[in-house]
Amino acid sequence: MSLTPAYDALVVHHRRIHDLEHLQAVATWDRLTHMPPAGASARAAAQAALTVLIKQLQAGHVLAGQFEAARQEPLQGDTALNFARMEQARRIEASIPEALAERRELAVGAAMQAWSVARQDNDWARFAPAWAPLVAVVRESAMRLGDALSLQPMDALLERSEPGLRMARVAPLFARVQGWLPPLLEQALAAQAGAAPLLEPVGPFPAAAQQRLCEQVMGMLGFDFNAGRLDTTQHPFTGGVPEDVRLATRFDETNFVPALIGTMHETGHARYQQNLPRAWLGQPLAGPHSAALHEGQALIFERQLAPEPAFCQALSPLLHQAFGHQPAFEPDNLTRLLRRVRPGRIRVAADELTYPLHVILRVEIEQALVDGDIEVDDVPAWWNERMQRLLGVGPQALFSQGPMQDPHWVQGMFGYFPAYLLGAMAAAQCFAALRRDVPDLQAQVALGDCKAIGDWLSPRIWQQGARHDLDAMMRQATGEPLSDNALRAQLEQRHGRSN
Amino acid sequence: MSLTPAYDALVVHHRRIHDLEHLQAVATWDRLTHMPPAGASARAAAQAALTVLIKQLQAGHVLAGQFEAARQEPLQGDTALNFARMEQARRIEASIPEALAERRELAVGAAMQAWSVARQDNDWARFAPAWAPLVAVVRESAMRLGDALSLQPMDALLERSEPGLRMARVAPLFARVQGWLPPLLEQALAAQAGAAPLLEPVGPFPAAAQQRLCEQVMGMLGFDFNAGRLDTTQHPFTGGVPEDVRLATRFDETNFVPALIGTMHETGHARYQQNLPRAWLGQPLAGPHSAALHEGQALIFERQLAPEPAFCQALSPLLHQAFGHQPAFEPDNLTRLLRRVRPGRIRVAADELTYPLHVILRVEIEQALVDGDIEVDDVPAWWNERMQRLLGVGPQALFSQGPMQDPHWVQGMFGYFPAYLLGAMAAAQCFAALRRDVPDLQAQVALGDCKAIGDWLSPRIWQQGARHDLDAMMRQATGEPLSDNALRAQLEQRHGRSN
Repeated sequence: MSLTPAYDALVVHHRRIHDLEHLQAVATWDRLTHMPPAGASARAAAQAALTVLIKQLQAGHVLAGQFEAARQEPLQGDTALNFARMEQARRIEASIPEALAERRELAVGAAMQAWSVARQDNDWARFAPAWAPLVAVVRESAMRLGDALSLQPMDALLERSEPGLRMARVAPLFARVQGWLPPLLEQALAAQAGAAPLLEPVGPFPAAAQQRLCEQVMGMLGFDFNAGRLDTTQHPFTGGVPEDVRLATRFDETNFVPALIGTMHETGHARYQQNLPRAWLGQPLAGPHSAALHEGQALIFERQLAPEPAFCQALSPLLHQAFGHQPAFEPDNLTRLLRRVRPGRIRVAADELTYPLHVILRVEIEQALVDGDIEVDDVPAWWNERMQRLLGVGPQALFSQGPMQDPHWVQGMFGYFPAYLLGAMAAAQCFAALRRDVPDLQAQVALGDCKAIGDWLSPRIWQQGARHDLDAMMRQATGEPLSDNALRAQLEQRHGRSN
Repeated sequence: MSLTPAYDALVVHHRRIHDLEHLQAVATWDRLTHMPPAGASARAAAQAALTVLIKQLQAGHVLAGQFEAARQEPLQGDTALNFARMEQARRIEASIPEALAERRELAVGAAMQAWSVARQDNDWARFAPAWAPLVAVVRESAMRLGDALSLQPMDALLERSEPGLRMARVAPLFARVQGWLPPLLEQALAAQAGAAPLLEPVGPFPAAAQQRLCEQVMGMLGFDFNAGRLDTTQHPFTGGVPEDVRLATRFDETNFVPALIGTMHETGHARYQQNLPRAWLGQPLAGPHSAALHEGQALIFERQLAPEPAFCQALSPLLHQAFGHQPAFEPDNLTRLLRRVRPGRIRVAADELTYPLHVILRVEIEQALVDGDIEVDDVPAWWNERMQRLLGVGPQALFSQGPMQDPHWVQGMFGYFPAYLLGAMAAAQCFAALRRDVPDLQAQVALGDCKAIGDWLSPRIWQQGARHDLDAMMRQATGEPLSDNALRAQLEQRHGRSN
């Protein structure tokens, strides 16, 4: 007989929720990749019905007795840690009263609705009043969550994607980047202007050939096609479940780079998913735990590996094979193409050097919004001022290229943006440690053998699941807590004066 | 305020079950068409979890109070009929005690397991003892169901797929077929032997070209690609939900006929599904109600339409286009190919003339098994005797080509086989009525215009949902109750001496 019957019941309960979320993931994947249009409303109803069921199972009062009883049970090691993760999730969930959760859902619906129209029409005046009630709900949620967890509001929001991390730790890191990055950007642009012109690849690049190329590269990166697949969609995503990861991308026949690089990014997420600790699947301990760490796994492939000369050497013959011989596909030119710096207004199209500044801009604004220092209608002016100061880009003509470009805030996702820059730091720090630990990595990669990357990451990160918070994970994987040092060193090496 | 709150609650309850079954259908479709192998066990667990949830919602004791209360409410017309269908389903479900349902599940699992191995090894001695416990469970279920519905055991099983139909009505119909069909088969074989040789199409037939051809023919038959799609799979099926019907087939590159004809069959099922009464979706009244009627819709396209000279005339240019010009694709030769009679051992490969005999053989055996007149080990001898007598085919060398060929009995599906022959009768009767009502049908079809078929079937059958039992449905659609007359007339016209 088990000595921990209450805990065991909680494990079964979490497993069941995991199973139902599996079906939700399949339905979502199908909706975004294969579903014919007339199926949409029935699918929406079916998924909503399952969402209700899952929410009922997740509700704080369910199994309250088991939580109470499990606290008295002899839980140890990973089991105790898993229970602690269950309790924290329950604490977060319980801090939001049902009425507030309902208000949030309505507010998100109204904001998304207004956004989808206003974005196309460049109509901030229509969007802002529809968005303001959601911002109010987010503020109230942050306060309540903060009260429950004894945290400042912004820290409380951050806790949901970065457990254990506080803005007092994030802000100085971002301030350092804000110090060294703008001058580096200037240097990079000057160097680029003085360099020999880049050769542009010549299209068209047929979708079928791009799909084959992406699958080859996914294979090279260790993606397990026995446990996942690549399909086409409107907006790229990684979905599915750890046992069966579904990537989906979109092919632009005039430019193969976005699909290729996007697929490398998603493959990073996917390999992490495919290699979470299998024995704990369905339990909080299986992770993922930190959004920055998840993002970091994607960036290791996309931003660390892809623009390396060694990788471009391995990629070059695949491009010749896929699209015919072109001088633009030679490794040197390819490396320069993937490192090209082009300051612009769109975050998702940004290069590795300007991307951090896009993130810093957003984090400053969301913190001010959550703290009540500014209101919704102050956002465009704050945006323009930072765009100019940080990126040297003038006021946007279109709000859709400004504060209305990302869906995060419209969906009530505040406190998530830091993960993108923290993830870039984590990726650079891991890659630097990996290069140190595997001295001939570049030689292996140049031959198309990227196995060492997964071999290094798997025991240190992927298999750790949710055992450690971000800093602890970085310490045990790289020997140091998270910092901007590796990111800075690498960007300076790639784009600095010495380059 | 509603005057029927209890009934309304039941409607909501059925709608929710329908929504969850939608997700189950998506997951099944994905499993059979796209899922990578390593996803299998997670998917099985997830689908099992949802099955448990659905069964809990369907369980007899759920909403018992609402059923009680709804009986006192002023229900009328379709609403009263819908409630009656709910009650009948509940009565059937409640007649099987939980312990028996569990025994059944275990017995099916064991039988399927043994079957999958024994079938390959031609090992009846291994299969029979694993199957016998399931036959015992089926007998007990049939008795209990019979007690609850005041029916004989075999009638009770039949009630689940053919509400309102009794073996006393089925047996004489089948006896008549057994009278006129064998002599007709002899005539057909004699006529075939004396005719000019058939031209065989020459392969290969690339899968992609077959897929395009099948989609063209589906479109010709009125399949709504906005509300469904065609994919490839191992074992063809029609799945999905009425709002989004998923067909899947398999392409044999040496022979295009099975995929083409199979797709026409599935398109019949699909159009029925796509056109069930939308306002009642999720409720029992939306149907489908009769398995024979469902099968009949498929056979109207597969067996009635496909081998008609007019259809072959429309099909011919599509074949030339898909696979290059061949004399075998000329309409006359095509018609003869699709009508070719070849007695054999395999039901699913049987032609229109021998197919009814395969069904009669099975129905005789399953009735004897359910009634306890024979035991599991008597089946092979009964099978061989009937194979010889009805089809003139000698004892099978392989049990996999004999009583182990179909999955129905291994899954505990007894009382379903009659639907295949009743469906053939229904299809012929509908098609005869349609030809009578639309005198220039053949001329339209020859031009590739098959719209009249759906226009005729939709109001008479598809939109009727579960309003009528099989005989009543046939009476209101064709003016007569179900009989073998139209089937006989058509087969005699196609294969008789006068031909």
